[in-house]
Amino acid sequence: MRYLMTVTYNGANYSGYQIQPNANTIQNELEKAILTITKTSVTCTASGRTDAKVSAYHQPVHFDIDQVLDTRKFLHSMNGVLPYDIRILDIHESNIHARFSAKKKTYIYKMYLSNINHPLKQDSLPISPNVNIHEMKKFIKLLKGTHDFVGFRASGGENDTTVRTIYSINLTQSENDLLFSITGNGFLYKMVRNIVGTMLAVGEGKILLNDIRPTLFTEFKAVNTAKPDYLYLYNVEYPNEK
Amino acid sequence: MRYLMTVTYNGANYSGYQIQPNANTIQNELEKAILTITKTSVTCTASGRTDAKVSAYHQPVHFDIDQVLDTRKFLHSMNGVLPYDIRILDIHESNIHARFSAKKKTYIYKMYLSNINHPLKQDSLPISPNVNIHEMKKFIKLLKGTHDFVGFRASGGENDTTVRTIYSINLTQSENDLLFSITGNGFLYKMVRNIVGTMLAVGEGKILLNDIRPTLFTEFKAVNTAKPDYLYLYNVEYPNEK
Repeated sequence: MRYLMTVTYNGANYSGYQIQPNANTIQNELEKAILTITKTSVTCTASGRTDAKVSAYHQPVHFDIDQVLDTRKFLHSMNGVLPYDIRILDIHESNIHARFSAKKKTYIYKMYLSNINHPLKQDSLPISPNVNIHEMKKFIKLLKGTHDFVGFRASGGENDTTVRTIYSINLTQSENDLLFSITGNGFLYKMVRNIVGTMLAVGEGKILLNDIRPTLFTEFKAVNTAKPDYLYLYNVEYPNEK
Repeated sequence: MRYLMTVTYNGANYSGYQIQPNANTIQNELEKAILTITKTSVTCTASGRTDAKVSAYHQPVHFDIDQVLDTRKFLHSMNGVLPYDIRILDIHESNIHARFSAKKKTYIYKMYLSNINHPLKQDSLPISPNVNIHEMKKFIKLLKGTHDFVGFRASGGENDTTVRTIYSINLTQSENDLLFSITGNGFLYKMVRNIVGTMLAVGEGKILLNDIRPTLFTEFKAVNTAKPDYLYLYNVEYPNEK
């Protein structure tokens, strides 16, 4: 039997999704909780790893298990056993592979315009009110579509191909809050944080759009990686289940 | 010289605004920081006390001091010395008394509809998606205007008069988020939390509106005090300064 869960977590206190020795990870907490409840060791597979401190609103995670679960009861038990910063929103039987079946992923990055680090906006990055938002929007517009994003991949990432498709990429403002969102068919290692970091460098005038435009998909190398604390995996889409 | 500051704080780690022996308070942190910077002991007076764990977006605080401050430099120094969960947003010379000159105060209370305690909404109270929002709105509408709010005052509050005027009181919904806001000329001890607690009891059907309506300003006694963690002092208004 395969079950697909939707998991939400605040990543602030974790070394990321994937299990590592001597580190506190989301995967480790999920597998521990499932072991406690079902007395069975399983492996939890997410749609993708999230880095240390990255959070998720809806992270799909599947696991295979040799029993039939009462999903309603299981969900309730999981939320009783898990630490307060991880919660299961949904679980159902499925034939979907959380990672290989994923068609579209959306990440968001939360910012606000302020010279101070606001005590009531700890979930967002304060950025200077002097940034040029118009230039930032012009920059991200260039990335839409299918391109080789090798320049936005951090070293350490290993992928067969570095070509990815961005379906939508937006920066929206509501009073002093700025929300960046990006939807694509997949992302290279640290690609979203490198895009946000470069967008911020453009907004601060540290990089000029005219200088980087010609080399963006050939020789550009992102130099600014945005902090993980304000990055959220928002949603993952799959083909309709049979 | 009198200076008026606008202070914002996350109250989660504090025993409220006002100085108490052996307790961590906002007032204590402010006075300590001013002493460090100016080498002068002052008393900080807020527009009103906030309870333990209550936060503030814009809390006016004044202090009198026998020196002329470079306000720009002082603000910068304060934000360097204060703990991360307290910040000064503004400071200017003023003849306003933060408490006695206050004309209108606005509080907000953040909630969301969910059966789980969401890891990414720790600033809001989860309430059952089954609450009757229509009845809750009907209840708060009754409170608008000038009334004797003695039934919503917690014991321990000492006031000459228990009559207060509510200028506006609203409950607005945006997707699953519910925002309660109330503006009045002043509030009795725990009055806002008792109004929110009663509103929630009405929403859950634990109190029937028809039962409490006739006694609301005569014999009603609030039985449900909403948790302080999700209450925010939003704004305080003063007459125009001369």
